[in-house]
Amino acid sequence: MELLKEILNIRGVSGDEHEISSFIINYVLQRRNQWKVVPEVFYGDRFQDNVVLKFGDPRTAVFAHIDTIGFTSRYENQLVPVGGPDVNDGDELEGEDLLGPIACKIKIQDEKVFHDFPRGILPGTNLSFRQNLRIGEEFIQGAYLDNRLGVYNALKLCEDLTDGVVVFSTYEEHGGGSVPFLLKFIYEQWEIRQALVSDITWVTDGVIHGNGTAISLRDKFIPRKVFLNKIVSLAEKSGIPYQIEVEGAGGSDGREIQMSPYPVDWCFIGAPEDHVHTPNEKVALKDLESMLALYRYLMVHL
Amino acid sequence: MELLKEILNIRGVSGDEHEISSFIINYVLQRRNQWKVVPEVFYGDRFQDNVVLKFGDPRTAVFAHIDTIGFTSRYENQLVPVGGPDVNDGDELEGEDLLGPIACKIKIQDEKVFHDFPRGILPGTNLSFRQNLRIGEEFIQGAYLDNRLGVYNALKLCEDLTDGVVVFSTYEEHGGGSVPFLLKFIYEQWEIRQALVSDITWVTDGVIHGNGTAISLRDKFIPRKVFLNKIVSLAEKSGIPYQIEVEGAGGSDGREIQMSPYPVDWCFIGAPEDHVHTPNEKVALKDLESMLALYRYLMVHL
Amino acid sequence: MELLKEILNIRGVSGDEHEISSFIINYVLQRRNQWKVVPEVFYGDRFQDNVVLKFGDPRTAVFAHIDTIGFTSRYENQLVPVGGPDVNDGDELEGEDLLGPIACKIKIQDEKVFHDFPRGILPGTNLSFRQNLRIGEEFIQGAYLDNRLGVYNALKLCEDLTDGVVVFSTYEEHGGGSVPFLLKFIYEQWEIRQALVSDITWVTDGVIHGNGTAISLRDKFIPRKVFLNKIVSLAEKSGIPYQIEVEGAGGSDGREIQMSPYPVDWCFIGAPEDHVHTPNEKVALKDLESMLALYRYLMVHL
Repeated sequence: MELLKEILNIRGVSGDEHEISSFIINYVLQRRNQWKVVPEVFYGDRFQDNVVLKFGDPRTAVFAHIDTIGFTSRYENQLVPVGGPDVNDGDELEGEDLLGPIACKIKIQDEKVFHDFPRGILPGTNLSFRQNLRIGEEFIQGAYLDNRLGVYNALKLCEDLTDGVVVFSTYEEHGGGSVPFLLKFIYEQWEIRQALVSDITWVTDGVIHGNGTAISLRDKFIPRKVFLNKIVSLAEKSGIPYQIEVEGAGGSDGREIQMSPYPVDWCFIGAPEDHVHTPNEKVALKDLESMLALYRYLMVHL
Repeated sequence: MELLKEILNIRGVSGDEHEISSFIINYVLQRRNQWKVVPEVFYGDRFQDNVVLKFGDPRTAVFAHIDTIGFTSRYENQLVPVGGPDVNDGDELEGEDLLGPIACKIKIQDEKVFHDFPRGILPGTNLSFRQNLRIGEEFIQGAYLDNRLGVYNALKLCEDLTDGVVVFSTYEEHGGGSVPFLLKFIYEQWEIRQALVSDITWVTDGVIHGNGTAISLRDKFIPRKVFLNKIVSLAEKSGIPYQIEVEGAGGSDGREIQMSPYPVDWCFIGAPEDHVHTPNEKVALKDLESMLALYRYLMVHL
Repeated sequence: MELLKEILNIRGVSGDEHEISSFIINYVLQRRNQWKVVPEVFYGDRFQDNVVLKFGDPRTAVFAHIDTIGFTSRYENQLVPVGGPDVNDGDELEGEDLLGPIACKIKIQDEKVFHDFPRGILPGTNLSFRQNLRIGEEFIQGAYLDNRLGVYNALKLCEDLTDGVVVFSTYEEHGGGSVPFLLKFIYEQWEIRQALVSDITWVTDGVIHGNGTAISLRDKFIPRKVFLNKIVSLAEKSGIPYQIEVEGAGGSDGREIQMSPYPVDWCFIGAPEDHVHTPNEKVALKDLESMLALYRYLMVHL
């Protein structure tokens, strides 16, 4: 869990993923020689802050977004949301501008969001929730489990992956924009036509803590039924606990895969969480385990 | 009209177009040798459930979406809409899950949509309106005229088409996602820069039953004026009855053609219908005739 | 300013940019031999009504949209908006249909928009605000400063540009659709990975008349932070007056650059205006000057 703790403390508001991106690149370059298969690593200017790993002879790609929700400072102590944070008066924020580090609280006045930092903050500075990680016997709780758990899942998966592509993507929380060129790259290079979205979903009336990772049959967007059928039947065969999710709202990197000019099937598979997009996101450790187990199984059998 | 009756009875909710897709592929493979020009047929994994026919030396593509609106079953007898069905209490639905065939009714409670099927339905199962086709002297009425009439129009057009591409597309009712890669394919293969959208529109205060197929000058999206002018002037020359449509809302496969990274002009041409997205969609047979006649004319002269 | 006056009098409602496009092509072909570097000019069928100029060895592209907001005539004297015009009862409109030139006024009844032209207007005809240009010591005021000023800025920039791409784009006001194929072209030809959006923004509580061109750090969409940092630090070095803008809403050609399947960084830089999307848009001449000066500086140093 040291890796998980580490990435839970690295900031990466959408559009400002440089730091988490560098961490992943360094981590991969240092570790990959101990992995079962040493992946090729693609990053740099042509990839903006995204990272692509290619293992063996890939058929399926895993997408894990590395960005988080947050806030952009505006004028007169105003904050503009990045993605869809669930804000509450008194939430603690952190960040940094040219004048130094920032720690402040959210104040809500007349339904507008302000910060209370005394010296003012340079306009355009990104702020995010202060991390307050709590790991118990059954649950992990803190800010940005969505999607640091999905990133952790993807990095752990790398350890014994033989064939596949692992993509660390940016901008997911704020409407996307990097999946189109990432998909273009992996389709043109290796004709990848299957994708799994390693991300965190919601606890709802049909998906609860502790029953295993959710396999989402739809959210606002609808994957192709023949692909879903294949995944559910493999999950059934695997013996790994899982739950079926059916929603009418919400989206993920899957949306951009769906809309892209490449014929790539996709499915969202991830542990469910409570208190979504607050500093107190909560996930059952068993669901995280089942998530990783299912990814390992599917990347072999799909 | 046997072909039309047949395809009006094949289900194909967005994302689940496998059955209607197979029907079209088989129909085309069986019939194409009797057509004026034998088309090349493109389908299979690289096309998901879409089908592309290429006739002669093509300049223009016709898009007919093969999916329909419908519902996905959720938990506790809830239904989530696919596309934008116009639901009414008591509407009859059909479908099938692993436990067998399903026939049930819609119940609306507190503005939420439920089904009344006694044994429950596996989450993720697609349901659609029960077909109740009525063909009279002047009108055809039933479920899914939108867009089985557009598909019928495209298949009839094939019989004497000499040059052109005919595309049977998926996902139109639910936000799209297949037109981008289809357009990429037909542009890269044959540099197609003109597209007609063979789909069904609305009866409104400016477009009425019996006055001919509608040529849409805009909906929420706006085709390029120079292309519209060319089409209207050809329609005028043809002597075929038509109506001009101007709307501020609504969309079609044209939206995705507009937004794609290919410079392709498009225009929606289709018969108007009443009771849109209900089990009682209604179209004048004369408008369907004029639709086919105009497509035949335009595919030669455009 | 003669050039500016001229283009402020040329109509070009989104989808109907043929006239302004032709003007730009002719202007460029006539003038380019007097420019510091003679650009290659790309236009014609494969570009619809867009125009691309390529100077020297380009690293950065400038996008200036040539379309304007307006109205499409419907049935029974109704008008459907193109883009988001801010309409007021009595606003004067102009246009032309097959029956001749049109001059009329807007009438708002029951929150619907009508025109008062006696003879009726052919459905599908585009109308735009009558131009009423007022140039004073400090301000310019009239219709369609957004984005004729951005086009003017781009054309003046051409005079001493050595390396760069200048793109005149269509459809920006109405959801876009041309930037995707333009971006594909300039990325595939010259691997352009930096873009500046030459467009007009809003006077707000943080951005005021006379303080210089705005550099937008975000609107509804968020450019990549590392690119913004580079631009702001160059602007600072340049000594040219500028203002920082941070918004949570609004969009530009930048949105489509963000969403495209090409890894292109972007930033919106433009003078602020009052009375946006009315016939009385108002911009400070000093801000227009600073806009041009900053583009000249950035195209050399970026």
